[in-house]
Amino acid sequence: MSKTFTALNPATGQSVGESIPEHSFEEVSAAIKAADKIKDKFAATSPAQRAALLNAIADSIEAKKDELAQISNLETALPIPRVTGEVMRTVIQIRAFADLVKTGGHLLPIIDLADPNYQPVARPDLRKSQQPLGVVSIFAASNFPLAFSVAGGDSASALAAGCPVVVKAHPSHPNTCQMVYHAVVKAITEQGLPKEIFTLVQGVNPEITHWLAKAPEVSAIGFTGSGMVGKLLIKLAQERPIPIPVYAEMGSLNPVFFTPAVLAEKSEELAKAALESALLGSGQFCTKPGIIVVPNDAAGDKFIASVQSYIADQKVPPLLNKGIASRFTDAISLISKAKSIKVLTGTTNSDGFGVTPTIFVVDWAEVKNHDALLEEHFGPTSVIIRAPYDQFLTIAKSMSGQLASAIHATAADNVKELVTALTQKAGRLIWNGFPTSVSVTAAQNHGGQWPASSSHTTSVGLDALFRFVRPVVYQNFPDHQLPAELQNANPYGIERVVNGVRSNKQIN
Amino acid sequence: MSKTFTALNPATGQSVGESIPEHSFEEVSAAIKAADKIKDKFAATSPAQRAALLNAIADSIEAKKDELAQISNLETALPIPRVTGEVMRTVIQIRAFADLVKTGGHLLPIIDLADPNYQPVARPDLRKSQQPLGVVSIFAASNFPLAFSVAGGDSASALAAGCPVVVKAHPSHPNTCQMVYHAVVKAITEQGLPKEIFTLVQGVNPEITHWLAKAPEVSAIGFTGSGMVGKLLIKLAQERPIPIPVYAEMGSLNPVFFTPAVLAEKSEELAKAALESALLGSGQFCTKPGIIVVPNDAAGDKFIASVQSYIADQKVPPLLNKGIASRFTDAISLISKAKSIKVLTGTTNSDGFGVTPTIFVVDWAEVKNHDALLEEHFGPTSVIIRAPYDQFLTIAKSMSGQLASAIHATAADNVKELVTALTQKAGRLIWNGFPTSVSVTAAQNHGGQWPASSSHTTSVGLDALFRFVRPVVYQNFPDHQLPAELQNANPYGIERVVNGVRSNKQIN
Repeated sequence: MSKTFTALNPATGQSVGESIPEHSFEEVSAAIKAADKIKDKFAATSPAQRAALLNAIADSIEAKKDELAQISNLETALPIPRVTGEVMRTVIQIRAFADLVKTGGHLLPIIDLADPNYQPVARPDLRKSQQPLGVVSIFAASNFPLAFSVAGGDSASALAAGCPVVVKAHPSHPNTCQMVYHAVVKAITEQGLPKEIFTLVQGVNPEITHWLAKAPEVSAIGFTGSGMVGKLLIKLAQERPIPIPVYAEMGSLNPVFFTPAVLAEKSEELAKAALESALLGSGQFCTKPGIIVVPNDAAGDKFIASVQSYIADQKVPPLLNKGIASRFTDAISLISKAKSIKVLTGTTNSDGFGVTPTIFVVDWAEVKNHDALLEEHFGPTSVIIRAPYDQFLTIAKSMSGQLASAIHATAADNVKELVTALTQKAGRLIWNGFPTSVSVTAAQNHGGQWPASSSHTTSVGLDALFRFVRPVVYQNFPDHQLPAELQNANPYGIERVVNGVRSNKQIN
Repeated sequence: MSKTFTALNPATGQSVGESIPEHSFEEVSAAIKAADKIKDKFAATSPAQRAALLNAIADSIEAKKDELAQISNLETALPIPRVTGEVMRTVIQIRAFADLVKTGGHLLPIIDLADPNYQPVARPDLRKSQQPLGVVSIFAASNFPLAFSVAGGDSASALAAGCPVVVKAHPSHPNTCQMVYHAVVKAITEQGLPKEIFTLVQGVNPEITHWLAKAPEVSAIGFTGSGMVGKLLIKLAQERPIPIPVYAEMGSLNPVFFTPAVLAEKSEELAKAALESALLGSGQFCTKPGIIVVPNDAAGDKFIASVQSYIADQKVPPLLNKGIASRFTDAISLISKAKSIKVLTGTTNSDGFGVTPTIFVVDWAEVKNHDALLEEHFGPTSVIIRAPYDQFLTIAKSMSGQLASAIHATAADNVKELVTALTQKAGRLIWNGFPTSVSVTAAQNHGGQWPASSSHTTSVGLDALFRFVRPVVYQNFPDHQLPAELQNANPYGIERVVNGVRSNKQIN
């Protein structure tokens, strides 16, 4: 008799859907072993087959667009237009990986033909390509019930790389997870591939995280969530007899800097835009501007006054689950007690897991006395730091690693040093904009220095795939023993680097 | 008054050169801080400047070729032709990195221009390039006094990436290290760059390793050496407030498999070649074939008999230092005691740190009773495993991660499964050859699964550079605030991917 749990509607606190059976250790282990057993078969699929699979998954999810939007709205309280858009983002990012693998862009074949005159010694025939790591454990995030969940960026990039995926559903939206899972498996089986490529694990038992990290057949971990769980996963992964990489995105403060000159021009407009970014999705984005730095001058004060006036009638949807809501309330209540911190509040949402939007204002000199100000607080809050402009560089340098950071400045501002300092903290720098909204594209980078990210990789955009492959070089191999992408005939017709020159031709 | 130490000639056990002052904690810390202070200046050098620096370093080292060969021969007992060749390999690999950075190949610029029609939402202007990590600590290896030492592959790739380097000299060849260091600094200053880009740390104090790993300004570690020190570095790096990546190559058994068919054709020839590979450089290569698997049939027995006959008159140069020699002798003596293991010995070298080449022969069924057989033993030894051919796949699957592995087979042999199994263990697979000798080329991969390597990267070949950079994306930045490689005018004239298309043109 297995344990069960039930999803809750954050807007009402009431149950959503049927009770969901929790997976046992034996079931999780069996799923991982089954995935390991078919990994070679999946790895051997051609670029065309892999692309067809991804496109079929995207189609299958898109076919459920409205049902997915409805169920995820019930489970997360995120508005219907937001979750509908998220279904499409999920589908589009899977198709982007399909386009990448179709061209062999995931294989990066490099061929150096034998050269008896090579220096300092003759060169053998060397042919390298990228091979999938094997079974990957992925953890769905609470705040993107589709785009960072069961078939989100981590799963899409791992499948594109040729890795079977075992994904832990997020217990805040298990019905959405289940519906996505069925859509994915339908596509896999229709493509004639083994359904063991993709397994969903459900449950609230914290031990499941340990099982997924410790199983010997697991080769890598993809995670988006809290620093606490991210660091636990890293520890578990490092303590294994064979350590494995953990690609963890663990949140960020995403500081936004406003120069005196830019605020002098349009402090009201920028205050409104900053507040909108901070409250977007009820402040539950890893790219939320958690720190806003303004000059301690008249324009800065006007910015703060504008925020105060705008926030008053701001009401946001309830938070994703009870835990997030109570951690938010506790943190806000604690920080609000400090005499040196000014508290600007919005309209309370009293439904379900609703909370009150709250912005703090503090002088830079006071920040060192309140560690909690420089911690991420998931929910509709941000900290406005008032500082002399000549302290902005010091503030930037004192920050820990960030996913993103933004600078608002005029064309005349000299912010070269500030940009350089932030480049060394963040993976993405935004000019005259806000860190929320992350475009899925080849140039994108969603990652940053520790503790925002556990590695120098991105979890959004095409480069996310390369987290799940490793290079292997074949020396002097007979042609028919090579993987197809390295054979002379170039049967996939993909672009390769042959003796330093890009070519999609065959080798004669 | 600082402590000193002196190099020893492995062939005589006598001192080489003057006594060398050991660096103190204060000196090491100051060097790292000084390197950190100039890192932005170094990072900002153009591809042409970076390439000119690398070429100047190569020229400066080449100008000392004969002196370097002489001093390193005295300190390592490696023959003059070997160390002369190694100077040239060192020089050539630095020049290869110069060629790579000259074209901007280290920057990998990807530009996605703003697109209001992008789906699911409008795309901002996104421009990504690879940026240097900052100060890198590198540890010179004992067994390559030039190519994996002070200005070896790790230093060359870190400098090419734009990272200042603090390198720990190997105490077995400190005079060689010092001479290389002076050649590098001469080139740096002649290029008008700050000499703090490159610092040499000398000493035998094991605490130096801790200082280099724990300094807050250090951003990454490059290491080639023992599993013991590699694992210590990984632990130290993970325990830091801000963990940093450790690129450690920690040795390998590099198993070589011979099918019955190939041995039936030419067992004598292959036995001689295998023995030569195992004894090359006195068996002090991380790519030494430490495991040789032969069928337990007549051809396998003939192979073993041939090894026995060839080894008798084999005498190899002394080992690199006293520690290596005594660990070798202890391990050989321990394994030799086992009744089920046959011991084939060569000619003893009684000079200095000389030892006796020793090959073990054991049945596969016995291996599980002798853990030491599956450990790396630095020095002129290898283990020949006799096994039924139908056990080869099991043997391959039971192996831990390897840098390299080789298969000797005929065209008619079906070794597909064996190749697949070894692909999942090793970073390089060799057909009808031996793992020693690693060509420095774009397609090369010198890395492999844990514990051979701590990451899925290579320490040899051009891709080694990418260990020392991280991606940063700029969103909607004004042109003049962007790094040069991302500006519209493409001032470096390098190849970039613009909206998915490779181009070295400017953007209009």
